[in-house]
Amino acid sequence: MTRWKPDAAGRLTAAALALFDEQGYDATTVAEIAERAGLTKRTFFRHFEDKREVLFGGSEELLRRWEEAVAEAPPGAAPLAAVAAGFAPLAEMFEERHAFARVRARVVEANPELQERELMKLQRLADVVSAALRARGVAGNEAVLAAQAGVTVFHVAFARWVAQSDPAAFGGLLEESLQELRGLAAAGG
Amino acid sequence: MTRWKPDAAGRLTAAALALFDEQGYDATTVAEIAERAGLTKRTFFRHFEDKREVLFGGSEELLRRWEEAVAEAPPGAAPLAAVAAGFAPLAEMFEERHAFARVRARVVEANPELQERELMKLQRLADVVSAALRARGVAGNEAVLAAQAGVTVFHVAFARWVAQSDPAAFGGLLEESLQELRGLAAAGG
Repeated sequence: MTRWKPDAAGRLTAAALALFDEQGYDATTVAEIAERAGLTKRTFFRHFEDKREVLFGGSEELLRRWEEAVAEAPPGAAPLAAVAAGFAPLAEMFEERHAFARVRARVVEANPELQERELMKLQRLADVVSAALRARGVAGNEAVLAAQAGVTVFHVAFARWVAQSDPAAFGGLLEESLQELRGLAAAGG
Repeated sequence: MTRWKPDAAGRLTAAALALFDEQGYDATTVAEIAERAGLTKRTFFRHFEDKREVLFGGSEELLRRWEEAVAEAPPGAAPLAAVAAGFAPLAEMFEERHAFARVRARVVEANPELQERELMKLQRLADVVSAALRARGVAGNEAVLAAQAGVTVFHVAFARWVAQSDPAAFGGLLEESLQELRGLAAAGG
């Protein structure tokens, strides 16, 4: 049996993450990433626009999955339930990326520019989910609040998921965080 | 009676905002701001570190007011109620800044870098409120969720407040948004 060889994009991603983690994101060049992966810069740029895309390339799939899940939630679902309909497909999408997500979280945490980019991604996610709710007939103000609440739950559960070692835990953590938010909101004013 | 003359910081702020709004934030220099205000660059730098501080100089007061209100909420207050204890002092602080806030919102909306900065400010706000909740004995996960939920309510109510013309409406919009969030969280799963 030959040794398993990941695809070029996978090798470049692994090399980039390892370098970002070891020496910092800013200090890492595309040339170093390609060299570490045993590939050329040209190959890197066939797969990624820049080094930031190694960290944020998954955003589009995340947006699309959540948007679809909200659109396909049962017609009678309450706004927050329609938002939460995205949790299972998101958990499924992320499960196999746990090792990547754990290192990625550390890299983002260490770099203010990446933190800003991450917050922009979450805001864009909230905007997309909010638009998907409005398309279901949810009023504008409620759509914004429900989408932001859903992204908050996602954000908090994601932080818990990368802080522990079980890749399959994300779905449960999303559900648990949602129930905690519901409990907090129900507690006397 | 002599014509009313605002203080230097006020004149610089008004000049900066007008220029940001007219010609864009990136295109505006400190020299232009000072000139428009009839003051020198040196005076500008006695009041502001850079042009960004004209837009974000109020953040520290916002953080401090909210943090204090959470700390001083009644001992038995539920986490989200302790967070909401900041709404009245924040509404009071912002009321007199409505004209500023409305133009500022337009300037930030037009500039991705300022949007990122704004999101970082909101994240820092959530972190400060969360820490204030933990200091009250609220568990870590609940503190993060309640603080993020509070910042979401603040964010949504703020957008509504700058989109309408009554400076005194902020307190009511905060309360209304909080009740909407409670309603959304209570609606069947």
